[in-house]
Amino acid sequence: MTLEEKAAQLGSVSPSRNVADEAENEGDGGTPMIEDGELNREAAEELLAEGIGHLTRIGGEGSLPPERAAEITNELQTFLTEETRLGIPAIPHEECLSGYMGPEGTTFPQGIGMASTWDPDLMEAVTDTIGDQLEAIGTAHALSPVLDVARDLRWGRVEETFGEDPYLVAQLATAYVSGLQGDSPADGISATLKHFVGHGVGAGGKNRSSVDVSERQLREVHMFPFEAAIQEADAESVMNAYHDIDGIPCAKDERLLTDVLRGEWGFDGHVVSDYFSVDFLKEEHGVAATQREAGVAAVEAGIDVELPNTDCYEYLPEAVRRGELAEETLDESVRRVLRAKFEKGLFEDPTVDVDAATDPYEDEFAADLAREAARDSLVVLKNESDLLPLDGADSVAVVGPKADDKKGMLGDYAYAAHYPEEEYEFEADTPLAAIENRVDADVSYAQGCTATGNSTDEIGRAVEAAEDADVALAFVGARSAVDFSDAEGDKREKPMVPTSGEGCDVTDLGLPGVQKRLVERVQETDTPVVVVLVSGKPHAIPEIDEGAEAVVQAWLPGEEAGNAVVDVVFDGHDSGGHLPVSMPKSVGQLPVHYSRKPNTFSEDYVYDDAQPVYPFGHGLSYAEFEFSDLDVSDVEIGPSDTVTASVTVENTADRPGSDVVQLYVSAENPDQARPVQELKGFRRVELDGGESARVSFELGASQLAYHDRSMTLAVEEGEYELRVAHSATDVAETATVSVTESKPVPRTARRYVTETTVDEA
Amino acid sequence: MTLEEKAAQLGSVSPSRNVADEAENEGDGGTPMIEDGELNREAAEELLAEGIGHLTRIGGEGSLPPERAAEITNELQTFLTEETRLGIPAIPHEECLSGYMGPEGTTFPQGIGMASTWDPDLMEAVTDTIGDQLEAIGTAHALSPVLDVARDLRWGRVEETFGEDPYLVAQLATAYVSGLQGDSPADGISATLKHFVGHGVGAGGKNRSSVDVSERQLREVHMFPFEAAIQEADAESVMNAYHDIDGIPCAKDERLLTDVLRGEWGFDGHVVSDYFSVDFLKEEHGVAATQREAGVAAVEAGIDVELPNTDCYEYLPEAVRRGELAEETLDESVRRVLRAKFEKGLFEDPTVDVDAATDPYEDEFAADLAREAARDSLVVLKNESDLLPLDGADSVAVVGPKADDKKGMLGDYAYAAHYPEEEYEFEADTPLAAIENRVDADVSYAQGCTATGNSTDEIGRAVEAAEDADVALAFVGARSAVDFSDAEGDKREKPMVPTSGEGCDVTDLGLPGVQKRLVERVQETDTPVVVVLVSGKPHAIPEIDEGAEAVVQAWLPGEEAGNAVVDVVFDGHDSGGHLPVSMPKSVGQLPVHYSRKPNTFSEDYVYDDAQPVYPFGHGLSYAEFEFSDLDVSDVEIGPSDTVTASVTVENTADRPGSDVVQLYVSAENPDQARPVQELKGFRRVELDGGESARVSFELGASQLAYHDRSMTLAVEEGEYELRVAHSATDVAETATVSVTESKPVPRTARRYVTETTVDEA
Repeated sequence: MTLEEKAAQLGSVSPSRNVADEAENEGDGGTPMIEDGELNREAAEELLAEGIGHLTRIGGEGSLPPERAAEITNELQTFLTEETRLGIPAIPHEECLSGYMGPEGTTFPQGIGMASTWDPDLMEAVTDTIGDQLEAIGTAHALSPVLDVARDLRWGRVEETFGEDPYLVAQLATAYVSGLQGDSPADGISATLKHFVGHGVGAGGKNRSSVDVSERQLREVHMFPFEAAIQEADAESVMNAYHDIDGIPCAKDERLLTDVLRGEWGFDGHVVSDYFSVDFLKEEHGVAATQREAGVAAVEAGIDVELPNTDCYEYLPEAVRRGELAEETLDESVRRVLRAKFEKGLFEDPTVDVDAATDPYEDEFAADLAREAARDSLVVLKNESDLLPLDGADSVAVVGPKADDKKGMLGDYAYAAHYPEEEYEFEADTPLAAIENRVDADVSYAQGCTATGNSTDEIGRAVEAAEDADVALAFVGARSAVDFSDAEGDKREKPMVPTSGEGCDVTDLGLPGVQKRLVERVQETDTPVVVVLVSGKPHAIPEIDEGAEAVVQAWLPGEEAGNAVVDVVFDGHDSGGHLPVSMPKSVGQLPVHYSRKPNTFSEDYVYDDAQPVYPFGHGLSYAEFEFSDLDVSDVEIGPSDTVTASVTVENTADRPGSDVVQLYVSAENPDQARPVQELKGFRRVELDGGESARVSFELGASQLAYHDRSMTLAVEEGEYELRVAHSATDVAETATVSVTESKPVPRTARRYVTETTVDEA
Repeated sequence: MTLEEKAAQLGSVSPSRNVADEAENEGDGGTPMIEDGELNREAAEELLAEGIGHLTRIGGEGSLPPERAAEITNELQTFLTEETRLGIPAIPHEECLSGYMGPEGTTFPQGIGMASTWDPDLMEAVTDTIGDQLEAIGTAHALSPVLDVARDLRWGRVEETFGEDPYLVAQLATAYVSGLQGDSPADGISATLKHFVGHGVGAGGKNRSSVDVSERQLREVHMFPFEAAIQEADAESVMNAYHDIDGIPCAKDERLLTDVLRGEWGFDGHVVSDYFSVDFLKEEHGVAATQREAGVAAVEAGIDVELPNTDCYEYLPEAVRRGELAEETLDESVRRVLRAKFEKGLFEDPTVDVDAATDPYEDEFAADLAREAARDSLVVLKNESDLLPLDGADSVAVVGPKADDKKGMLGDYAYAAHYPEEEYEFEADTPLAAIENRVDADVSYAQGCTATGNSTDEIGRAVEAAEDADVALAFVGARSAVDFSDAEGDKREKPMVPTSGEGCDVTDLGLPGVQKRLVERVQETDTPVVVVLVSGKPHAIPEIDEGAEAVVQAWLPGEEAGNAVVDVVFDGHDSGGHLPVSMPKSVGQLPVHYSRKPNTFSEDYVYDDAQPVYPFGHGLSYAEFEFSDLDVSDVEIGPSDTVTASVTVENTADRPGSDVVQLYVSAENPDQARPVQELKGFRRVELDGGESARVSFELGASQLAYHDRSMTLAVEEGEYELRVAHSATDVAETATVSVTESKPVPRTARRYVTETTVDEA
């Protein structure tokens, strides 16, 4: 291979983007390879002459329907295999956070909603389905999941995460990867764990801001889900993060990308750059004077493939010739990319059956699964006097800007959310439509206000609607994804400014615009109010919560939002959803995650304590669950042993229901200050009324380990309290287990998952 | 020495406190040694039988006037030297943050105000004066200064700090220590650098919360002032911090207290514990099961003396006998305490001349200095149409809760601030009194509202007063120090809840109570409004700032607050004060310090950018200063060289004035992402109208060094931009200097201070 052919394998190109137009990214120029849905052979010949590592979002960015995406992918792959000197096919990648981000992809709940299901099996079924849709169009690689641990709720990408807890994130990550990748590399879609690492704690809650985190926190909180997904699910790819940690940008951090990832963890897949992050070494961090320097730094650190374009890596051949980069470094990355292509079976046949491309998109199962996931992701936060489900209401007032905003049910990286209605027709019922279609009651609707505009003119109409109804439902929250409205003028006057999603970080966690006023006015009526929060992040709304009879956190439920809301709010489906993040009282109270250290709680603020409005793990059932008879298999265990904790779970209601049994662990007098408790296991259960089950958790002593003063992962001798709980603050049963001896935990002996079993009681 | 005698040297007792009453601290019991201002010999015999390391706040906590404090100190020292077996005197310590915290101590501006003077010479004169007052009553040791770098403005102790910048903090720290300690240990008062380390960035802005900071940040931001004060000013003592860093409580952190402090930096003084922090290892962090265990951990880590009582260290003899603690460890700490006593001259004569005790308290110089410091600490933030100084106003309306609150002019740790008027008569003019006494205008006054109460009933009267006047002055801000009001009931209804000071952390940076409403209502009149902020922290008040014709940040100016305000606001004294912290737009925007990394600024929030309302270093003069002709002595320097940057400073106005010439440095394409710029020198200048001066900064290349990837402090080859500026965002002149070679900086060759000189232009 020539140096240019090698560098090409470490590069990428977006077939539908004219990179020459993107002056700020200093793209390599040229006409797009796809224009009006047709392959431009001349452009392909120019851009793919030396081959290419990845092809960027053929279907998604190209807005191609599945069949056409498959066709174009086949054409591009055939071009590469038949008309380039080496005949090496590309790895076509797509985005698929909550579903394939392209036309007709099924849209499941956004990450934070999926996390609220606390259901790894459901997660795996979802990504298995996403994988089928991607595979059908010839995609080999997906830029998901997001494993960032959300600790700063100002961050717009909180919605993409699985919440605040490393264990919960790790378990869902493992399920996500397993579903997407399938049984073998050749079968499934490569998952990309992102963003490595610490993206959830950028300074000021900003997306690409510096991260200042200590080593033990970095490893135990932020790295843990990545490590677990690599060890437990053999994740095939990793993406670096934009920010710097303590001054060292992740895109040039050899310790992270090589020493830890490959050396300590034995990761053998390939590392791709977050879009433009290699270029940002020059443009944003100022740590490279030229794109060549940026490219050399990134490849030396361990970034194998530059995405989305080969902006900096195109200078790698020159760098080798100038003696600035060892050719072996280049070779090593090329080897990884080629190995990935072999393993994905691309060398055998990179094309797909065009006639079958639409099948997984038309499958009823996908839509049903989207509905199941959406309804199980809703979290009932409050339900005074068992107001919900609303099975007896004769008249319902529906108000608020999130009641009838179809694309507003979707999160960032959902295809439909990024295109205005006139450009992309998206078929789904909004909550209002589903209520009107399915609920046997008089339904009146008044939006009251927009998501972000400042006009209060229409609030009175919403109040009138509420006054005349048996119950009022207020659908409020935040708009995610891009702003469709005119970019000129005062943002505060615009109706649909996104205040969630990538690049949409906020300094206030209240409801945007005048929505708080709307809800408060509706609450002043005598009509009971159900507040449904449709938002990618928890809002700090203690007053609204106080004034509401019922509150449901619906997150961004995806295309089945309307049905899911009716299923839960009216039809009595017991969602079983529980919070994967704590809901703060105000932005000034951050951080509020449950697993802070004990001293954090020892002093209150002047006017507030340190507790959230609703804790991590909170979620109400329409049934009634009781936990009893916690029993541990051993009261003393060695540092390499396991202990099984079993508890009886009974649904004491006369109706079926779902709950999540949560297992927390708290160390007694450890050497270091440790979190007040840490989630170490959970199990979602569905029981009929009056039914009981025995839930068992097999916990390894290695899961109690933390990093000692020499940063060695070790189990510490001493007592540990096991807590079986309904939420982080609602502990039902406790038991104590002693570890008899302190001992380092070798990486190979480490457990990441607590095995859970459910037996008859 | 017996084990008990050794442990006693590592302990302390408060002569005026009945420690048996303090159940939560599990004190060692006994009657207080001072009752009603008299020594209780029986108690002394019991508590001091084995000797004692420190005596805690004899005068301050005992509320003894200077002469009586001297007498009691003499009695206690005589008892120790003449009636204990070993005859070892104690180290009497006091608090003196903004002045001796005892009756009659002169109260200077709170730390944040002193920092606003940017005047190390003034700082040194202040602490020299404080030292004289302490020495006169027999004190040997002071628990100041606070060197925490304030990066989270929610923290109540921001007022105690010298602001957000490590260089500014370090320079003022060095001056503080030099003034207090004098020319030799036997002459002056030992300074205690606190709180080691990182106390300014507790999670959630809370006082004793966990700190999560990366190693390079810890060293370059938080440790730097401590290191500078040890190397440049031979600080004699250090106090640990309450929190844990990455899980390890500072009170048991051997790496910090021994390896870094003594090993790397060569500190040879003694380390004292923050009050109760050894006990908190058990009570708060949960890392010790017993007080004995806590004591052993602390002394092993390097805490020599437990303050304020010997709660845990009394178990050290038992620990030695049980084989849990090496006697050599105890001996080493005892040696340090005894060495300190020798060096302070206590073995020669620990008593003082009682007749001379009051002299430094009656010295006019102290009051004059307090006035000079107070007026130079005021920062004129805004002055539209040169409204200030108000030399022509015929009628003045004075409104706001900070206009006539005498003790509200003081910060936490100021003696008078902690006692209600009926208990301690404090003589000082408030701003209202000073205006009435000194300003030749009709003065009307209406408080309008209280500092923290929620009543708006009186706002109308303030509005009326404003309407009838030529100009309105609104004195608003926060109450610091303890709450005198009844502790029962709803805090939001109380008039004087402290929202600043230790333990008074907030979740909102707006003005407390209804003060915002008061100011806005006054601003709605046609009368121009001068807002004077009397507060220990910057408030986030963009709307108030927008509506004000002039804004003065007065901080907590101390006992000369009234005169200082009149000097600056009416009499045209050019304060020369500049912000030592950035003023944010909202609490949700934190952190906002100027020296963030470049990527922090690359994306805005949805509704805000990342810039503060007023930047670090900002402050207006009544004169007009221009900087020109920046010249560097060399365009290339070696890594061990220095470079001199000189700039002409001209007061182009026709009146005298003060300004601060600020030197920032920005590295070009460094290996790591670095702060966008860093303050590396400053010089306060006073020039007559039309006068010029040439200000020179001699900067060592070692001052450009940062910690490389192996955490070695090294200068990096490359270009550096030197910026001479009026504030962090108002750069007047730039020049570039190249460092020719990368090279590690040995600790001994490190420079901490940029020498500045002022010559005729």
